[in-house]
Amino acid sequence: MAKATIKQVAAEAGVSTATISRVLNSSGYVSREVKQRVMAAVTKLHYQPNAIARSLKQDKSFTIGVVLPDISNPFFMTICRGIEDIVQEQGYHLLFCSSDEKPEKEEQLLHLMVEKRVDAIVLATTGGNEELITRLAASGVCFILVDRRLELELSESGAVVDLVAEDDVYGAYELTKQLILAGHSVIGVINGCMGVSTGQDRFVGYLKAIHEAGLEHDPALLYDGHFTEAGGRAAVRYFLQMAKPPSALLSFNNKMTFGALVELTESGRDIPGDIAIASYGEIEAARLLKHSGIMYVDQKPYDLGIKAGQTVLHRLEKGLDKSLDRDAASPEPEPIRDILQPALKTLPS
Amino acid sequence: MAKATIKQVAAEAGVSTATISRVLNSSGYVSREVKQRVMAAVTKLHYQPNAIARSLKQDKSFTIGVVLPDISNPFFMTICRGIEDIVQEQGYHLLFCSSDEKPEKEEQLLHLMVEKRVDAIVLATTGGNEELITRLAASGVCFILVDRRLELELSESGAVVDLVAEDDVYGAYELTKQLILAGHSVIGVINGCMGVSTGQDRFVGYLKAIHEAGLEHDPALLYDGHFTEAGGRAAVRYFLQMAKPPSALLSFNNKMTFGALVELTESGRDIPGDIAIASYGEIEAARLLKHSGIMYVDQKPYDLGIKAGQTVLHRLEKGLDKSLDRDAASPEPEPIRDILQPALKTLPS
Repeated sequence: MAKATIKQVAAEAGVSTATISRVLNSSGYVSREVKQRVMAAVTKLHYQPNAIARSLKQDKSFTIGVVLPDISNPFFMTICRGIEDIVQEQGYHLLFCSSDEKPEKEEQLLHLMVEKRVDAIVLATTGGNEELITRLAASGVCFILVDRRLELELSESGAVVDLVAEDDVYGAYELTKQLILAGHSVIGVINGCMGVSTGQDRFVGYLKAIHEAGLEHDPALLYDGHFTEAGGRAAVRYFLQMAKPPSALLSFNNKMTFGALVELTESGRDIPGDIAIASYGEIEAARLLKHSGIMYVDQKPYDLGIKAGQTVLHRLEKGLDKSLDRDAASPEPEPIRDILQPALKTLPS
Repeated sequence: MAKATIKQVAAEAGVSTATISRVLNSSGYVSREVKQRVMAAVTKLHYQPNAIARSLKQDKSFTIGVVLPDISNPFFMTICRGIEDIVQEQGYHLLFCSSDEKPEKEEQLLHLMVEKRVDAIVLATTGGNEELITRLAASGVCFILVDRRLELELSESGAVVDLVAEDDVYGAYELTKQLILAGHSVIGVINGCMGVSTGQDRFVGYLKAIHEAGLEHDPALLYDGHFTEAGGRAAVRYFLQMAKPPSALLSFNNKMTFGALVELTESGRDIPGDIAIASYGEIEAARLLKHSGIMYVDQKPYDLGIKAGQTVLHRLEKGLDKSLDRDAASPEPEPIRDILQPALKTLPS
């Protein structure tokens, strides 16, 4: 099929070519009815002005790509809500996709986002793609990491990768300390993914607190729950079959905690009568338990999203040229590091 | 900046142009390390082969757009999981976006998806965009509606819009009937959005069941919860302040039910001792309540997603040309209507 011209599209839609431009560039007022006619004509004639041609001209696609490890986790979806509430005021749309905690899938999705010419990528990384991320960032892709940092030291790569995250070491340290102060010395740990920074940092915070209290870490009291609900359930089954089960469980994310609570409920255990619970991250569902006394790190995913959205806008509006072909005399842009301090809360007991 | 050629990209990456093609067309084996080098070179030189050029050649972008009303609702995210599990085997990626139950936002997102040249759009519509959807579908956009159908009759438009949904009238009818059989005649209804088909159909199913039982619908026993958790909480506050509160609550989606359960728990009510609960849709969190006896319509969002994914592949693989410029002598393709029959379940009491 021959390539359609803007004139043919205008004729099909029964409007002027100026109107077509207005609709496609989202500039100036066009009624909803006319907009719909124009888009139908564009589609029917396979007219391609288009995403790429326009973004070349404007150098913007007004789309932000968001690559997350788990779209079924309300923590990440609340981050998205925060990002969107900030960027949509400036006309940006979000496109999400889910890596399912798989580095290979994350790699494919990062390529897809570059292909779709998103203006920026907000990424909560699965880990394992440091080299790709560094290369893409050094080549000019605008990356904002959220919740999880990279492993590698980027300083020599010329890459600028911003980060909005929490101080996970501090949060886990405080949470563990509270459990110890409450009298628990045999604590079962439901550990997260050690391949990502939040998994590592929470474990480090726990170790710091128990060593400070003069306790030893017992490997038999560590169960790898992989940040999933099923992992939390399996951990509870593991701890309950021990000759001397722990008096408290310390779970390193919300999904594992929910799984643990379901398993404890179904096995007839009382919380905290039979076993106390401490959770890195709030569990909405725990509001259905009476007097559970659950201690938790009150993560602020909406605030993380707001900060990430503001960082995206800062980078895009400043037109900060991160690419390697910028003036060699200009200083390297400094990466933004925005680390939020989490607080502890306790449900009524 | 002059447009980069494939040769320049190959030189930058230190590979052959054939390798560049293999990477960009995802054909043939290329090591992960080389792939990363190629993508970094493509990005650095702003080379645009690319999404559009390749999709013109292949007539496919291998991307499916999914437009949902609420990305924080696990029901919709489980549908996505089902779709993705089917289509990713064939090399397709999903891009999600959220309309937040706002027709204006849905309209913008549908245009965005067309611009991004997705191969198909899976849509759970907010309602209110029937005309746009019909026009786009008639122009050749491959639409698969999931969970929610369109209001308008499409038969004369030439548009083919497939649908994968549940029989919501039947589900709500059966759920209401069970409440009545359990002895409830004063039932508080937490109603959903009447602007979308699921909201309407569930209300119709309820009316059918109460009329069949010789009961009257009392408008004072209807509270509009807008399919949100906050709506479910507000509904409970409304019903509890009545002179004669209902003996049972009937909630028309999972988020409203969760809100209702939290509000009842916080006000010290026992379920089902003080008030019985029936829910259209499963509440994962309700597993933390002991002996709640909650009746629910066991929706199968994963199955809906699987069916929707299969329908997408069927349309894309058959290369079914839905556009108006197909051979006029060929028969109109028939829209697919796949309506699943939901079943009731009850939590332990």
